[in-house]
Amino acid sequence: MKLALWQTQGFPGDVEGNLASLERIAQSAAAGGAELLLLPELWLTGYNLPELIPALAEPADGPSFSRIADIARRNNIVIAYGYAERPSPEQPVYNSVQVVGTAGAPLAHYRKTHLFECMEKSLYTPGDVFEPPFSLGEWKIALLICYDVEFPENVRTHALAGADLILVPTALSPEFTNVPDWFVPARAVENTLFIAYCNHCGVENGLLFLGGSKLAGPDGRTIAAAGEGEALLIAEIDLAARKKAAPTFPYLRDRRPELYTSLDKG
Amino acid sequence: MKLALWQTQGFPGDVEGNLASLERIAQSAAAGGAELLLLPELWLTGYNLPELIPALAEPADGPSFSRIADIARRNNIVIAYGYAERPSPEQPVYNSVQVVGTAGAPLAHYRKTHLFECMEKSLYTPGDVFEPPFSLGEWKIALLICYDVEFPENVRTHALAGADLILVPTALSPEFTNVPDWFVPARAVENTLFIAYCNHCGVENGLLFLGGSKLAGPDGRTIAAAGEGEALLIAEIDLAARKKAAPTFPYLRDRRPELYTSLDKG
Repeated sequence: MKLALWQTQGFPGDVEGNLASLERIAQSAAAGGAELLLLPELWLTGYNLPELIPALAEPADGPSFSRIADIARRNNIVIAYGYAERPSPEQPVYNSVQVVGTAGAPLAHYRKTHLFECMEKSLYTPGDVFEPPFSLGEWKIALLICYDVEFPENVRTHALAGADLILVPTALSPEFTNVPDWFVPARAVENTLFIAYCNHCGVENGLLFLGGSKLAGPDGRTIAAAGEGEALLIAEIDLAARKKAAPTFPYLRDRRPELYTSLDKG
Repeated sequence: MKLALWQTQGFPGDVEGNLASLERIAQSAAAGGAELLLLPELWLTGYNLPELIPALAEPADGPSFSRIADIARRNNIVIAYGYAERPSPEQPVYNSVQVVGTAGAPLAHYRKTHLFECMEKSLYTPGDVFEPPFSLGEWKIALLICYDVEFPENVRTHALAGADLILVPTALSPEFTNVPDWFVPARAVENTLFIAYCNHCGVENGLLFLGGSKLAGPDGRTIAAAGEGEALLIAEIDLAARKKAAPTFPYLRDRRPELYTSLDKG
């Protein structure tokens, strides 16, 4: 499967601008042979806009969904995008990711369970469920968002549920190089699966993003990576690489769950 | 506290040679101000000697323990050493680490729970217990051995039990650069604690070791590291660094144990 990651500065607060640019990028990714295009966390609205986001939040099947579904269908590409979700005007706001298939129907949805620091905790309600991996051809694909992937428990949970690939839209600042440099390769190899970590870049409302998006293979090695600026990464991933890595890194086989009884205690 | 890690080629199969060299190194480490000296996995016998090790295995309070306790007492330094343990001639062999205090008494002991591949699995019986951290002054210190540290569950278990520092004797080959490059810093910062990872170096009975011993701090950064050859690393570690790292990396605070229910299922 060919996977595309779009590291973008986006148009903060301008949903229409973001949808318009998705049209172009989806076409480019599809022309490059990509079957799935991953966008950053809260791509639709921008990340660092706490005053604007509540008003820009939409239901999962809201007007932007229809537009994105149309782009997915016309370009024959699956699109995974971060957005601010409000199921109805009376309900709270979630930091969510949705995956739309080439038929224009939703394939998967996830609400960020591990919110980062005060701004996120005041703005969003955390999700309480790790959605099981969804199927795309032979692939089992799971969803996490940003801070979620920094907890080994979360990636392990999806690995135990059979995930081959984890899509991680993110919004990461430059002080956290620990995530692309150590966590992304560590999570990949300790679970012998693929991790696609797609960040913002540039400055948004005074907040600088790291860039550094990365696609890591089941041996932890980098398949593709971006620097500081806008980048569309398109790379082939091969399910056989999981089987190839497992004998060298047999962690999933050698776990001893009977010893891990303290991990789910409050 | 000043900590010393001794990355050594050792004298494979020659317990007497190893004890004699420990005498020198303990003196050097103590002269450098170190309070604790960490040695590699199966340091006492050598690692890659499956035919010799069963005969060289000793009880925890065996003749080598007395010699090491004497070195610890005379040099006023705590010594953590890997050895092959056989509690009695009728009992199985364990891949163990023991910590001897400056009074010459054992402070802590641990039997490797996660054995690596066929040679280890045929030679050793795995331990079934993560020993709680032991106290040394203000420090809480836990023990893991080599492959153990590659499982995030194991380090997390000790972090939840209050460990500030994890001592990891190891015997790592050059193909596993993922461990010092990604896992050691990731484990340290994801638990905001210190990890001391002490390897063999050189060639032993046809097996090449990586070297690459590393002491990582609670922000994951390297405090001291060795290259390929023999090295004695002596470095200061400061408990205050844990408190300093926690606000930037609040993983232990932000865990959601109620979501981690699949991790201890068979």
